[in-house]
Amino acid sequence: MELECAEIVKRLGKWPVGNQPLYQLLAEGLKKAILDGQIPLASRLPPERVFAKALAVSRSTVVAAYTLLREEGWLESRQGSGTKVLMPPIPHAPNLETVYNPSTSGSSITEQMFGKPDNLIDFSAGIPAALDLAQFSETFFDLGWMMQEKHYLPQGWPALRQSVAHQYTRQGIPTGEDQILITNGAQQAISLLASLYLQPGDSVLLENPTYFGALDAFRQVGARLAGIAVDPATGVRLDLLQNALSGMHPRFVYLTPTFQNPTGAVMPSEHRKKLVQLAEQNDLVVIEDNTLADLELDQRAPPPLAAFSQGDKVITIGSMSKLFWTGIRIGWVRATPAIITRLTRLKVVNDLGSGMINQAIATGWLENYEQAKQWRQQELLPRRDQTIRLLQEHLPEWEYNRPGGGLFLWVRLAGANAGAFAQLALRYGVVLLPGNMMSVDESYSQYIRLPFLHDHAHIQDGISRLSRAWQSHGLLNKNDSSTVNFIV
Amino acid sequence: MELECAEIVKRLGKWPVGNQPLYQLLAEGLKKAILDGQIPLASRLPPERVFAKALAVSRSTVVAAYTLLREEGWLESRQGSGTKVLMPPIPHAPNLETVYNPSTSGSSITEQMFGKPDNLIDFSAGIPAALDLAQFSETFFDLGWMMQEKHYLPQGWPALRQSVAHQYTRQGIPTGEDQILITNGAQQAISLLASLYLQPGDSVLLENPTYFGALDAFRQVGARLAGIAVDPATGVRLDLLQNALSGMHPRFVYLTPTFQNPTGAVMPSEHRKKLVQLAEQNDLVVIEDNTLADLELDQRAPPPLAAFSQGDKVITIGSMSKLFWTGIRIGWVRATPAIITRLTRLKVVNDLGSGMINQAIATGWLENYEQAKQWRQQELLPRRDQTIRLLQEHLPEWEYNRPGGGLFLWVRLAGANAGAFAQLALRYGVVLLPGNMMSVDESYSQYIRLPFLHDHAHIQDGISRLSRAWQSHGLLNKNDSSTVNFIV
Repeated sequence: MELECAEIVKRLGKWPVGNQPLYQLLAEGLKKAILDGQIPLASRLPPERVFAKALAVSRSTVVAAYTLLREEGWLESRQGSGTKVLMPPIPHAPNLETVYNPSTSGSSITEQMFGKPDNLIDFSAGIPAALDLAQFSETFFDLGWMMQEKHYLPQGWPALRQSVAHQYTRQGIPTGEDQILITNGAQQAISLLASLYLQPGDSVLLENPTYFGALDAFRQVGARLAGIAVDPATGVRLDLLQNALSGMHPRFVYLTPTFQNPTGAVMPSEHRKKLVQLAEQNDLVVIEDNTLADLELDQRAPPPLAAFSQGDKVITIGSMSKLFWTGIRIGWVRATPAIITRLTRLKVVNDLGSGMINQAIATGWLENYEQAKQWRQQELLPRRDQTIRLLQEHLPEWEYNRPGGGLFLWVRLAGANAGAFAQLALRYGVVLLPGNMMSVDESYSQYIRLPFLHDHAHIQDGISRLSRAWQSHGLLNKNDSSTVNFIV
Repeated sequence: MELECAEIVKRLGKWPVGNQPLYQLLAEGLKKAILDGQIPLASRLPPERVFAKALAVSRSTVVAAYTLLREEGWLESRQGSGTKVLMPPIPHAPNLETVYNPSTSGSSITEQMFGKPDNLIDFSAGIPAALDLAQFSETFFDLGWMMQEKHYLPQGWPALRQSVAHQYTRQGIPTGEDQILITNGAQQAISLLASLYLQPGDSVLLENPTYFGALDAFRQVGARLAGIAVDPATGVRLDLLQNALSGMHPRFVYLTPTFQNPTGAVMPSEHRKKLVQLAEQNDLVVIEDNTLADLELDQRAPPPLAAFSQGDKVITIGSMSKLFWTGIRIGWVRATPAIITRLTRLKVVNDLGSGMINQAIATGWLENYEQAKQWRQQELLPRRDQTIRLLQEHLPEWEYNRPGGGLFLWVRLAGANAGAFAQLALRYGVVLLPGNMMSVDESYSQYIRLPFLHDHAHIQDGISRLSRAWQSHGLLNKNDSSTVNFIV
């Protein structure tokens, strides 16, 4: 069996974290990946020069790591047939078990967000800190009452569904509680919609780049993904979308129209109107994921796509994660009662229904919706500005827009491969998300998604580390400029 | 389009609930099912005589309902081509919307457990009341701390995984926290395992009868299900299981070996040993679902199948739902770290991770595991005995075992079709689960699963209603004994 070099790098995960020499860290990382089954027995490792390039290390580092592993009996190298993985000499050796955490060594994109050591600055995940609980204390719930009264309800707790429906109605989108299904965050909403609409081989249209959790969910059911480019100012390119529809019949288009993830683009109202018309003319289902839409900084969000639809083509996903706290795991789908009925059936088979306690707490929090929006704005706006100020100062070659909301800068690393730079940044203690992980087709390899949600000290420290990483990247490139620049 | 008569009855749901005459209730039920899309436009309804038999009503009731619907423009009957569903004359009429609840009108088996009106006694779901919260007050959690520290973790909160692993280790099954994945109840555990192991067309072995939520989950991914009969004394028949393995290569066998759902059978230790040997010889994965195993009444549960396995063939599912409270939505999988890693990837794509608050509460509760078992025993044992006493008195023709644990009697209704009797029981205000809904092959149509988890007053009232329903069933049969008895 053969894994691609890029795939092996992915599966290696966070190998360069630690105080040992790089070649030892690489050897340890390979051992863990072999024990874990990430790198299968009898598979071949990449040639040293290729692997070194992908890991942004010198060839001698890889040579030393391979040598060590050969000496310990993990690898076998033969002239002409490369380097082969052998049966581990001491299966599950105790010293490895202590550092071995299977939840961090995965291969799905989403999973790589998790399980970072404490000393790292995480510039990969889009998870804001929870709002201050004290501000919500009056809405605290009575667990004893809950437990006497409620078991579980597949479609969700009626009071929460009413509250969510009320939010839409207040925004001018009349919504009944029978149009709401409560899910475990937006991710489950995406996953249930994938189950409802997709069979293996079905086509899906998406913004390119887009939210990686959607890519994972649609790929898992075997869908074929077609990306539509995003205009940084106006969101998904409607002309390209229209072209795509002439040649294919996608089951739906998945969009993040407000503070697009990751570019921050906002689709203007007139585009929304046109998009919905296009959908209705082409019998195309539109799934809008508004997970980031509440995070207005200095730009007002237009109404959701649902506001422009008279028919049943628009399905809306919402979430408590960004405005309140992601640990509450509450999201929802807004759609027609008939679609909600079908999704509820899938929810039953999936997990019978969401936790009642989370739903009770979420119901209370939603009463503070407008206030929570203000708090988030006050928190995030100075962080965005600080991030941009520091980038201008320390990393003037990097290019990005100034998004009017959301959590992210979409940064083009002038002349660099983001995957290789992310490897380098890890050694300076910063986790980055390379753009190709948010891409339908592995493009955007020169981009990173940079969140501005940390406190000021962490933003400062993180960008300072990135700046040092960027300097060594420059030095590395000088020594070996022909190929690195060619990759870009 | 044509729906089978049995399918239409299923989709009608709880139609006979209300104070109007039966034919009006039936007409209303049909209207709701048509509006909801459960009964598609232009489909044909069953002939009156066939439909009457399936609904356990007289032919004149169906005739009157069809006549009413024809007069109101919902149906069209033509000589020779039957009764056809027309476009509803007043789509979404307000008087219907008020009673219309899409979450209760589903077609999956599991879903039919939900959304019953308050005046009904629910003898279908296996949901015990929550344990008294006051008993757990010392373990209450600090939400403020949670929200500062924790976001979400796909594999589950480490303290909860440790606590679950510790329970197994204490039972003599050494378990590390890397062998535990936290799920939203046992149902999500089943659903994730289905995603991990099954492709459309794959075979699965199950006890017959078994837990309906597993049937739903495996059917949804397109698996082919083969049932193995259950011996009321010793659980799944190993001889039949062995025979089955000679002719097929199932992806796994799913079992509820302790207080089998629904029969209450307990597989003895020597059978467990043999089963695990059989699995290891045949490279067969065994999924044991121990959701009911903590509910020991007057029989000790043998160790889980995992205790008899030296290898990696046994996967164990556990849950907080029956012992503590189902609304907490916490279950887990115990397996090898490699399998847990793969399941965690699916969990990420499914919902990123379970709610942190539920997990914190569950961690505290698990400290009271032994005490909770005692409380449940003290609660359920007299209820089982009361149920059996009342059945002996009022329904002496019914046959069942006296299970040593769990929540259910598996009752054979002498000479009756359980589906038709469930229709009748609904009119007396009792919801029953006919045995064919727990069957791999629609067999066990003369059985019901009767829970003994209600308080004494409800058990008394419920069995009194069932007794009256049984009397009218007898009368009905007398008038029309040839066919009803033939169906059985």
